[in-house]
Amino acid sequence: MTDLILHEDPCSGNCYKIRLTAALLGIPLERRFYDIRKGETRTAAFLGNVNANGRIPVLQVGGRFLPESNAACTWLAHGSTLIPGDRFDHADMLRWMFFEQYNHEPNVATLRFWIGLIGEAGLSAEQQRQIPARRAAGDAALTLMDKHLAANDWFVGNRVTLADIALYAYTHVADEGGFDMARWPALGRWLQRMTTLPGYIPMD
Amino acid sequence: MTDLILHEDPCSGNCYKIRLTAALLGIPLERRFYDIRKGETRTAAFLGNVNANGRIPVLQVGGRFLPESNAACTWLAHGSTLIPGDRFDHADMLRWMFFEQYNHEPNVATLRFWIGLIGEAGLSAEQQRQIPARRAAGDAALTLMDKHLAANDWFVGNRVTLADIALYAYTHVADEGGFDMARWPALGRWLQRMTTLPGYIPMD
Repeated sequence: MTDLILHEDPCSGNCYKIRLTAALLGIPLERRFYDIRKGETRTAAFLGNVNANGRIPVLQVGGRFLPESNAACTWLAHGSTLIPGDRFDHADMLRWMFFEQYNHEPNVATLRFWIGLIGEAGLSAEQQRQIPARRAAGDAALTLMDKHLAANDWFVGNRVTLADIALYAYTHVADEGGFDMARWPALGRWLQRMTTLPGYIPMD
Repeated sequence: MTDLILHEDPCSGNCYKIRLTAALLGIPLERRFYDIRKGETRTAAFLGNVNANGRIPVLQVGGRFLPESNAACTWLAHGSTLIPGDRFDHADMLRWMFFEQYNHEPNVATLRFWIGLIGEAGLSAEQQRQIPARRAAGDAALTLMDKHLAANDWFVGNRVTLADIALYAYTHVADEGGFDMARWPALGRWLQRMTTLPGYIPMD
């Protein structure tokens, strides 16, 4: 297979999605590390050579660069059972992955970064002002997931897909952002279910 | 083909993406209208029967419901040239579609909704406070697109894909949100190019 290099920050759930997908599929990845808290993805070299959008993760496939975590997972999982073959289920998998990037990550991941990694004392007044709205939106996203999982073992069909991997990455560390996970028991059972998958690796 | 119903608000660019995809492919859609400014997607009937996430668009495929605009476009375009067959290009198309939902829509579409549809005088203090950050992020997204289009006619490969449709929907009305489109000449040529596609329909 083509040489694969993951440009990443190990504390990022978006990067972990890609490593978890590769691990479940048995695909080796070389890793290159950047510290987003030190601005290492905003240097001229990074913007010019890796991603003009100044963000990690980026999956390097030979000489080509693929930003956006969920797109990179899709490249890795091409032709595997992590992507449903059925037309509706395939689109429904993407539905949950777009939900993750629009409704879940900007709230659940951001609060984990602000509260769990930076610390409330280090936040700007503007960031502090945004906490209640992001808390409410994160709670709503987790409640929606819990409702779905109360009736289903997985997000799409009857087996794990990229939808589960995308949503697992920041949900399983949402407590670090101050989310009260005891509120969502079906979500808790699904988080446990994910750890039993053959090839599963924890976040660094 | 299965009966298709688009649950939508005609003023939404996310809904227009789906109608444009269907038009380019010659697929007929039945339309059901909701006014998001009147809360018509937050009623118990909508939440219970159409989308528990309280959002449009939702593409109804027979008896199943598919939220998330870019997922619905993917269902419609299954097997067509709007989705590249090449493994990298397919993932790269999704890369731009995730960029659209994460970096573009929350800024470009939100400012169009606030400034163009509600009007600045009708905004809350919190919304007014958020305008500068969303303006800067929207400008950055449009600048990134312009840079790509200065060297490429389309976002992926050498023909139109769902990446172009997803990004076109809110870019072509970004001026309604106060974005100065004269800053991005390659973007302007691409907007024009989109209107020449066989089957193209304008937004309502």
